[in-house]
Amino acid sequence: MPTSLGELAEQFGCDLIGDPNVVIDGVGSLANAGPSALSFLSSSKFKKQLVSTKAAAVILRKDDAEDSPTAVLINDNPYSCYARIATFLCPAPTYEPGVHPSAVVAATAIIAKTAHVAANAVIEHGVSIGQNSSIGPGAVVGPNCVIGDNCRLHANVTFVRNVTIGDRCIFHSGAVVGADGFGNAMTPEGWVKVPQVGGVRIGNDVEVGSVTTIDCGAIDDTIIEDGVRLDNQIQIGHNVFVGEHTAMATACAIAGSARIGKRCMFAGMVGMAGHIEVCDDVIVNGKGMISKNITEPGAYASNFPIEPVREWNRTVAKVRRLDKLIERVAKLEKDAK
Amino acid sequence: MPTSLGELAEQFGCDLIGDPNVVIDGVGSLANAGPSALSFLSSSKFKKQLVSTKAAAVILRKDDAEDSPTAVLINDNPYSCYARIATFLCPAPTYEPGVHPSAVVAATAIIAKTAHVAANAVIEHGVSIGQNSSIGPGAVVGPNCVIGDNCRLHANVTFVRNVTIGDRCIFHSGAVVGADGFGNAMTPEGWVKVPQVGGVRIGNDVEVGSVTTIDCGAIDDTIIEDGVRLDNQIQIGHNVFVGEHTAMATACAIAGSARIGKRCMFAGMVGMAGHIEVCDDVIVNGKGMISKNITEPGAYASNFPIEPVREWNRTVAKVRRLDKLIERVAKLEKDAK
Amino acid sequence: MPTSLGELAEQFGCDLIGDPNVVIDGVGSLANAGPSALSFLSSSKFKKQLVSTKAAAVILRKDDAEDSPTAVLINDNPYSCYARIATFLCPAPTYEPGVHPSAVVAATAIIAKTAHVAANAVIEHGVSIGQNSSIGPGAVVGPNCVIGDNCRLHANVTFVRNVTIGDRCIFHSGAVVGADGFGNAMTPEGWVKVPQVGGVRIGNDVEVGSVTTIDCGAIDDTIIEDGVRLDNQIQIGHNVFVGEHTAMATACAIAGSARIGKRCMFAGMVGMAGHIEVCDDVIVNGKGMISKNITEPGAYASNFPIEPVREWNRTVAKVRRLDKLIERVAKLEKDAK
Repeated sequence: MPTSLGELAEQFGCDLIGDPNVVIDGVGSLANAGPSALSFLSSSKFKKQLVSTKAAAVILRKDDAEDSPTAVLINDNPYSCYARIATFLCPAPTYEPGVHPSAVVAATAIIAKTAHVAANAVIEHGVSIGQNSSIGPGAVVGPNCVIGDNCRLHANVTFVRNVTIGDRCIFHSGAVVGADGFGNAMTPEGWVKVPQVGGVRIGNDVEVGSVTTIDCGAIDDTIIEDGVRLDNQIQIGHNVFVGEHTAMATACAIAGSARIGKRCMFAGMVGMAGHIEVCDDVIVNGKGMISKNITEPGAYASNFPIEPVREWNRTVAKVRRLDKLIERVAKLEKDAK
Repeated sequence: MPTSLGELAEQFGCDLIGDPNVVIDGVGSLANAGPSALSFLSSSKFKKQLVSTKAAAVILRKDDAEDSPTAVLINDNPYSCYARIATFLCPAPTYEPGVHPSAVVAATAIIAKTAHVAANAVIEHGVSIGQNSSIGPGAVVGPNCVIGDNCRLHANVTFVRNVTIGDRCIFHSGAVVGADGFGNAMTPEGWVKVPQVGGVRIGNDVEVGSVTTIDCGAIDDTIIEDGVRLDNQIQIGHNVFVGEHTAMATACAIAGSARIGKRCMFAGMVGMAGHIEVCDDVIVNGKGMISKNITEPGAYASNFPIEPVREWNRTVAKVRRLDKLIERVAKLEKDAK
Repeated sequence: MPTSLGELAEQFGCDLIGDPNVVIDGVGSLANAGPSALSFLSSSKFKKQLVSTKAAAVILRKDDAEDSPTAVLINDNPYSCYARIATFLCPAPTYEPGVHPSAVVAATAIIAKTAHVAANAVIEHGVSIGQNSSIGPGAVVGPNCVIGDNCRLHANVTFVRNVTIGDRCIFHSGAVVGADGFGNAMTPEGWVKVPQVGGVRIGNDVEVGSVTTIDCGAIDDTIIEDGVRLDNQIQIGHNVFVGEHTAMATACAIAGSARIGKRCMFAGMVGMAGHIEVCDDVIVNGKGMISKNITEPGAYASNFPIEPVREWNRTVAKVRRLDKLIERVAKLEKDAK
């Protein structure tokens, strides 16, 4: 919805330098924004893009204002300010209430009048879907799932069974929630499957990425607290606990019964062993391996960045021959006495 | 189905200490089990939870019996005993025979009278589905797939084509079996696709996790033997062979034509290069990289656990400067002569 | 389509040693090919399989011809020659034109007369599908997607919205293209979602593996150039750029705004941080971690191969105690003065 800069400044608490009557009708990157689009400068290191922008206005910190060739909205946190204004300018699509005739809905399912169930979706027995929630095409909501208000399950999402989610949650396409955890007991005749009888409980304002999987609990429930953000291709094992506002980037894998605190941030490809704990406010760099309890907040890492193959092979060889080097030093020490 | 402790003891070969007439109607964790639930103690390290349990009874090893505040079922392998009793108490759901009217079934498909095909599933030409097998909502079974008896394909599973599975197999939601392997030949004009004309052959009692992918063979078939267990988010490349009772945890990636023996156990995020072999009874720890043949049974590893970022960065720098250290030691040795 | 060796030799530019009238009706591996099948020898290291093959003929390099027990087609690049002949002998299945009655197609969608839309697929508003393209069962093509000619979306693929692809592209089952990128701004009240308003633009002749995810751009588009090959389980973040003919093996994860050049080859499980660049012609070995710009073509690596756990644990301990060793060497140097 087109809005004047003056109105945006007032509504979102920014100081405006520039013409308040300029009308903004969308957003753009610094490099590609057109003359009616709003852009933002999240960090001074992108200032080179700022000086040549053709945007109508840019959200930025006070210190960066003088470098802008165009109008500015000054805010202490330009990125979150941009997020809020962009949500206002480009609201998520809405869906007309009702169930598409090709969807299959069990007689015992309770679907709010304002909810939307798209083509070829399947809603099974005992399901409840709240106000304004929308279930995408081809999505399957299995037995006894409870979906709050204003939720969005995108196309081809699967809730297997016994999944309960709060309000304003988003699940992207291909996500699978509530499938059996990996429970197997070894016997002389091979593996015996351990029944997975728990469910999944997810709070409010949780977003889950494409083809991310969150298994049901083995006995008790798997729990994801309010405000958690999970990127694509993540695995959350049975009985994992993820504390509120924790965010994980793509391809993390969290083994069963792991417990993760609040406000943690895991970069991509982090792995975490089962039955251990990470406290609140822990950051783990990409490809980090968490193999024991972390009890101190802070940033952690365990990856080696790439080198040219020849150098890397020498590095590996030197590490493997450290024994030899240690022996040589010990001999020198002994001889020196 | 509610059952007395005495009956459970007899049926599953346990010694009972406690009242045989107590009726058990479900299972629970040591921490949260109610007074009619059965729990288990898999390892003495969880004994603290045992002493405060409110479960009706606990399955445990003889040595742990005296610490139980409640009735006990004594068994040498409490976890597999629990798995069996839990399967008896909480049997997997059954499905009524028949094809849902919204499912689309090719005229040439042969579906057993006792099989179940759920809403919006698609069964293509030449498919055969055995007794009591069930195909979940939105699942697609492509041309010429053969499914044995008592199998379960959960919602939104895809069998692409030419997939043959035995009896009692379980495929969780979003799993994809029989898609083309990654075959590309380089030419001066770019990549040429190599047709993938093989199939996938899977034995009995195999369980495959959510969004795990098993590619069809390039020419011959990809083979998964009896009793294999694959967790979620795993990739099995074309022409891989996985020996019986091997288990892999989440997010392992096995490249084409790799061959894995029997009873191997790979923890999460293990990678294996193509065209190499791992013998029987090999354990690989989380994030391990298998890049050459493994010919000796045993446990292997190659990951560094996380450290605080500052310490880790110093570790990386020291490793990169090992050359320098080696030179300094060599000089000391020379000077000492 | 059965074809004589003589015709194949002529059509695909090979020298034939053997009877030109032998009829070939399919392909086979060296180990398992039958007497009317064509096989190939890609590398001399598989020569052991060559000498015992029962294939009707083998494609190989001139130098390997004398070791063949059967007819040979001589070509400088046996693998790409095989790819071309196999595509001719075993063409991809074709689909009859038209929309299956169970598919749901928006009134505003434009579908070419020669295109195929399979059972239970969903095509949303503003979509365009080109000549001879086929949309598999259960696939969903969301609003405003544009699909060129001769494309194949396999069963249960999801295009979320605003995805544009060229001609001759293949998307395997479970792939998700155009879902929201991972954009979150931290505020004192928790994460605020950053609207993802860009699309995805994909060139010609691109192949994307099963359950691979390619996110839409945050503002500008995510771009995949002509001829790119992505294996299964890969994540491509928002605003990533992948240059033409680059190939990635399974389970790579590319963070947002990363830029990858032309003709790069990433082995499995490679991770790449966001907002950095890799130049053309870079090869990265399996599990490599790209954490800064790569400006020189060549091969790179950063993984440690597995060792027996005991040895590995000693390696880790020695690396962690390098400080100590460095101090001891410094003391020796000081004492030697």
